[in-house]
Amino acid sequence: MTFVVPEFPPFDPDLAARLEARIAGKAKPPGSLGRIEALAVQIGLIQGTETPRVGAVETYVFAGDHGMNADGVSAYPSAVTTAMVATFLAGRASVNAFAGACEVTVRVVDAGVDADLPAHPLLIDAKVRRGTRNAAVEAALSVDELDQALTRGAEIARRSEADALVLGEMGIGNTASAALIMHRLAPAALDDCIGVGAGHDPDGLARKRAVLECAAARSAADQPLEVLREFGGLEIAMMTGACLGGAEAGKVVIVDGFISSAAALAAIRLAPGLKDRLVFAHVSAERGHRLMLQAIGADPLLDLGMRLGEGSGGVLAAPLVRAAARLMTETASLDEVLSGAIVP
Amino acid sequence: MTFVVPEFPPFDPDLAARLEARIAGKAKPPGSLGRIEALAVQIGLIQGTETPRVGAVETYVFAGDHGMNADGVSAYPSAVTTAMVATFLAGRASVNAFAGACEVTVRVVDAGVDADLPAHPLLIDAKVRRGTRNAAVEAALSVDELDQALTRGAEIARRSEADALVLGEMGIGNTASAALIMHRLAPAALDDCIGVGAGHDPDGLARKRAVLECAAARSAADQPLEVLREFGGLEIAMMTGACLGGAEAGKVVIVDGFISSAAALAAIRLAPGLKDRLVFAHVSAERGHRLMLQAIGADPLLDLGMRLGEGSGGVLAAPLVRAAARLMTETASLDEVLSGAIVP
Repeated sequence: MTFVVPEFPPFDPDLAARLEARIAGKAKPPGSLGRIEALAVQIGLIQGTETPRVGAVETYVFAGDHGMNADGVSAYPSAVTTAMVATFLAGRASVNAFAGACEVTVRVVDAGVDADLPAHPLLIDAKVRRGTRNAAVEAALSVDELDQALTRGAEIARRSEADALVLGEMGIGNTASAALIMHRLAPAALDDCIGVGAGHDPDGLARKRAVLECAAARSAADQPLEVLREFGGLEIAMMTGACLGGAEAGKVVIVDGFISSAAALAAIRLAPGLKDRLVFAHVSAERGHRLMLQAIGADPLLDLGMRLGEGSGGVLAAPLVRAAARLMTETASLDEVLSGAIVP
Repeated sequence: MTFVVPEFPPFDPDLAARLEARIAGKAKPPGSLGRIEALAVQIGLIQGTETPRVGAVETYVFAGDHGMNADGVSAYPSAVTTAMVATFLAGRASVNAFAGACEVTVRVVDAGVDADLPAHPLLIDAKVRRGTRNAAVEAALSVDELDQALTRGAEIARRSEADALVLGEMGIGNTASAALIMHRLAPAALDDCIGVGAGHDPDGLARKRAVLECAAARSAADQPLEVLREFGGLEIAMMTGACLGGAEAGKVVIVDGFISSAAALAAIRLAPGLKDRLVFAHVSAERGHRLMLQAIGADPLLDLGMRLGEGSGGVLAAPLVRAAARLMTETASLDEVLSGAIVP
């Protein structure tokens, strides 16, 4: 394993105090912008400045397929991953519609789609292999494959020219891997981690549960890298790398829903100091997400009953992140207003 | 009273069914975008089309002063209303910072500021009088003044060229009027309607409560127009008019926090069919707002602990409204994706 987990020292308490004072001096009743004030301070700390700026926001949709899908953990075939990648690139998926509304760019990362994808200007080819192995019967990834996934994810996030990154994903079967990651790293009882994903009838859900019990019985892994290697997936491991690399580079990293949060959970277990550098966009309707966020100690911004993935919830949080940064830099101080220094 | 309350017939059930079917056919698991799907259907019904569009969004900050402030219902003097109007016009208030992040225009409406305001390109002069009368001792408005406020508010909203309007406000003392409106029209016990507003220590809050008890004892009004006339304020009545006029003109009207919702409450009590034409942006941290929204039967989009007013919460909901409209028009159908018709 060549991937080096970055260290995240505590934030500068002097800067934190200056940011708090700056917010407290704004022309508004103290505390009256609630969560947005805390977010503004957090962004200042992430960027290491009293005058944070969030202009460009990019969503990376990490795509990968899952060997466990051969056993029916999803109601959909893996080919849907490929079809949705084409849809993202054509600008016709829900995340594209949301991104258009929120001034966010969408890029797709081929982390491990089980198809040969034609080149496209918005597609980053970071494919490690065509899909993971079936985690119900063997380790999903080799050490070297995991290493590549983490390294490439970190590199993609570090190289981004955006101020904030939304980590989204597409991968039929990936709530199954995310459930296993949550089970071992939250940790939580396996059953509390299993939901309907993209949709399951009771029989489908029972099948998913049986496959996940096989996978869990096969490996006792409970350390983050081992858990990612055993249970996959490539898009999740790449998002774990992107959390770490993006935060290391001073980006505001916006975590989306259940699967994106599972990647963040693994990253936080590798580097606990990372947690306060991540923005948790929303609580998903996927069963288990609320409990996972509690295990992380994260308080998401939005609660809209969404459970699509693709980065859709993260994109909707982007305007809040931009608004928080602008509060710090554009809103006048109370002193300015009361002194009559403001000229319309 | 010359103001005519518009009638809002029920939405076309055929259009509703077509909108639901259109969402259900999108390339995503059914229901997986939660509240945004319901919002998309609502916007389609408001605009009367299967292909809704929300481009331009304008925030109107209705500003007015309150006679009750002479008795100390706020911790701040009425002069702060004027100072904040200058701040909005200079683009330096929190709502301006948020609006910049959310691609929203901010305009200010002088509904009844207790000062002569110099002309400004972003200021709409709709002043009815310089502040309301003190509702603790007499009716805040005359019938004619209320009529003017409603008529001008409706006219401003109807004439807007934006697809969606955020109704925000600024008026030192206006949580006091809003509390009385809620008390009579929710209805709810007066004490449950009273909060700290822009900020009160326990003595200040006790003073506010005593003034509101005087006002409530003075008039038994419980009909919407009488309640607005007795308790004010001009900015609230003008927002009531704007709710009605904006919705009549097919605009998506976005209601902000406690005071904006009090205006919407009065409008809904005048025209119950209005309710489903309004989008409730957020639940404010001002005490009473959650109960007021329950009385209206409204389920707000955001819960961020905000209680500033100015339209700040409404502005943050604008990207969600735009995203919902785009979901309806830009996201591919499942048929398109599965048939291979999508070309990247």
